[in-house]
Amino acid sequence: MADPAIDDFYAVIPAGGIGSRLWPLSRADAPKFLHDLTGSGQTLLRDTWDRLAPLSGEGRIAVVTGRAHRAAVERELPGVPDHNVFLESEPRDSSAAIGLAAAILVRREPDVIIGSFAADHVIRQTRQFEFAVRQAAAVAREGYICTIGIQPAEPSVGFGYIKQSGELIVDGAPEAYMVERFVEKPDLDTAKQYFADRSYLWNAGMFITRADVLLAELAVNEPELHAGLIELAEAWDDRDRRGPAVDRIWPGLKKIAIDYSVAEPAAEKGRLAVIPGHFDWDDVGDFASLSKLNSGGGRNELAILGEDARVLSDASSGIVVSQTKRVISLIGVRDIVVVDTPDALLVTTTENAQRVKGVVDALKLTGRGDVL
Amino acid sequence: MADPAIDDFYAVIPAGGIGSRLWPLSRADAPKFLHDLTGSGQTLLRDTWDRLAPLSGEGRIAVVTGRAHRAAVERELPGVPDHNVFLESEPRDSSAAIGLAAAILVRREPDVIIGSFAADHVIRQTRQFEFAVRQAAAVAREGYICTIGIQPAEPSVGFGYIKQSGELIVDGAPEAYMVERFVEKPDLDTAKQYFADRSYLWNAGMFITRADVLLAELAVNEPELHAGLIELAEAWDDRDRRGPAVDRIWPGLKKIAIDYSVAEPAAEKGRLAVIPGHFDWDDVGDFASLSKLNSGGGRNELAILGEDARVLSDASSGIVVSQTKRVISLIGVRDIVVVDTPDALLVTTTENAQRVKGVVDALKLTGRGDVL
Repeated sequence: MADPAIDDFYAVIPAGGIGSRLWPLSRADAPKFLHDLTGSGQTLLRDTWDRLAPLSGEGRIAVVTGRAHRAAVERELPGVPDHNVFLESEPRDSSAAIGLAAAILVRREPDVIIGSFAADHVIRQTRQFEFAVRQAAAVAREGYICTIGIQPAEPSVGFGYIKQSGELIVDGAPEAYMVERFVEKPDLDTAKQYFADRSYLWNAGMFITRADVLLAELAVNEPELHAGLIELAEAWDDRDRRGPAVDRIWPGLKKIAIDYSVAEPAAEKGRLAVIPGHFDWDDVGDFASLSKLNSGGGRNELAILGEDARVLSDASSGIVVSQTKRVISLIGVRDIVVVDTPDALLVTTTENAQRVKGVVDALKLTGRGDVL
Repeated sequence: MADPAIDDFYAVIPAGGIGSRLWPLSRADAPKFLHDLTGSGQTLLRDTWDRLAPLSGEGRIAVVTGRAHRAAVERELPGVPDHNVFLESEPRDSSAAIGLAAAILVRREPDVIIGSFAADHVIRQTRQFEFAVRQAAAVAREGYICTIGIQPAEPSVGFGYIKQSGELIVDGAPEAYMVERFVEKPDLDTAKQYFADRSYLWNAGMFITRADVLLAELAVNEPELHAGLIELAEAWDDRDRRGPAVDRIWPGLKKIAIDYSVAEPAAEKGRLAVIPGHFDWDDVGDFASLSKLNSGGGRNELAILGEDARVLSDASSGIVVSQTKRVISLIGVRDIVVVDTPDALLVTTTENAQRVKGVVDALKLTGRGDVL
């Protein structure tokens, strides 16, 4: 029998971010989290929900998303209660999104522990993920802010790292460590050192903390942002006041990642803990990552994403994403990326995958925003 | 003032052949000759017509094409008289097509000289082309079968060659030579020898000959084919008899290239002459050739074909053919070939351009003939 949900735990899913490096698959009106990028048959958002439900219970998952995505989110998550969909009038980065959820939930339940997990990451080995979250909740209950750092599978230069330090002794969290510091994306030599060292973990942006502890940290580091969120939360559960409060307060909130407003300052004060996560994780940041994810990592394989894809490949490798019913023929193209959508086509290589964002910027500048 | 047309000359344009190596641009219902492959604003067929009209006069150009292409040909060539469109019920190769034209025209005009020029080749320097044809007509008038061989621009392995031998002295043809033999597409080392030698010319499939001389040669080498064509021609100008004769005789005619049925045997007998052509010529056999043709030969250029093409390229080279209004974005792909049509997409490289025909075969075999 599966373990029961964690009593005092609330899952928060910030569902924002378009995923520009996955253009033209990801769009403003069809962001990354609304796509099936693993061939699972459902969206990443739904995968995320399914992963969290056993930990929190379905009624205790909140989604923070843009007003434009409300209908899509409710379609994907029929189990989400209306009072757990927190709508942003525009994107204000992760401090505002997670801080809003914390401020609303703490009013409903003063001792609540929240765990924030991006809507568009891919995780395999769900049992190990659950075990890490349960440990993190135990650590959070003691007043720490706890993150889950992923045990690196390779010396990646695409992620930031968390340097762990001494063991933290907490009941129910046999693998807890303190965090010494965060480090930005390294160069390859440094990444190799980190990989060999074993005390560096990938920063997957997962934070588990008592809502009141997070808000207290935010109050110290970003007092104006904190004040705005408290004011918003106070109006939130009154339907007449919520809309006007959002329109008045939200657009003025500071855009800052929660790493800077909460996690790094907490680490400096010795208030940040980490549980090493022993599971496959990917933020599917670009088409190289998507290709690897869907081809079992084989260099000579061609990954194909898309229902009814009609792909004919001769000695080609890389990834094809097919959103049309067109026949797609590849001949002798290695590590290729072909993304075929009704109004835009991308052809590049996995090596150039990081440069896709530049195209999105160029399309904006050259007046072709209709395909963004 | 331009030179007048050649009195006894009739131009023949065999407009057959799909151009499988240009799939998915070329299709059964939109063969190569019905495309603008040079950005000239008109089809290759029309370019061919415009090139020949000053030599023969508009009323003396015959087109041999499939019944399926009749409407398209007449739309492209409003000046073609109805009695100069010779319709095949199915493709039977160049001996049947050119032989039919010869057999029909010799009945109308016993001493007629015909010149046969493919509908889907690209020629620049029209003045030099005209000069070569006028010389060839002078040679043909003396009873020779005359070809125009292209002075090679590089050691190509993509074309067959014509080995010239001694000078042929004919008034009005200062550059005429006898042909020693034909040689098939060589390997690169051989092609380099040919290129250095200067007495090897590219076989561009242009034949200028008295119709009766061509038919006499065909009668010796392919008597059954010859007999069928004579019977067809005899019925041709009687509207009631033509259709039934075509249906009865045409499908049984031997499929053989005119190189084998006429040109090579004539060369062996010392009846084949050649005029070296000092003009740019290309049969646009594949996308590598199309790319070169449209980018001025620059290795680092990206050629773009297609009205209203919306292409955004970052450090890419090769060719994009756009038949849709989609935005096409290329990032860091070198020598790429992207052909974007409403129902099929091809991605390959110029290096693999010759392998496109294999895809067409594979599509037939795998039941995707709808896009051929």
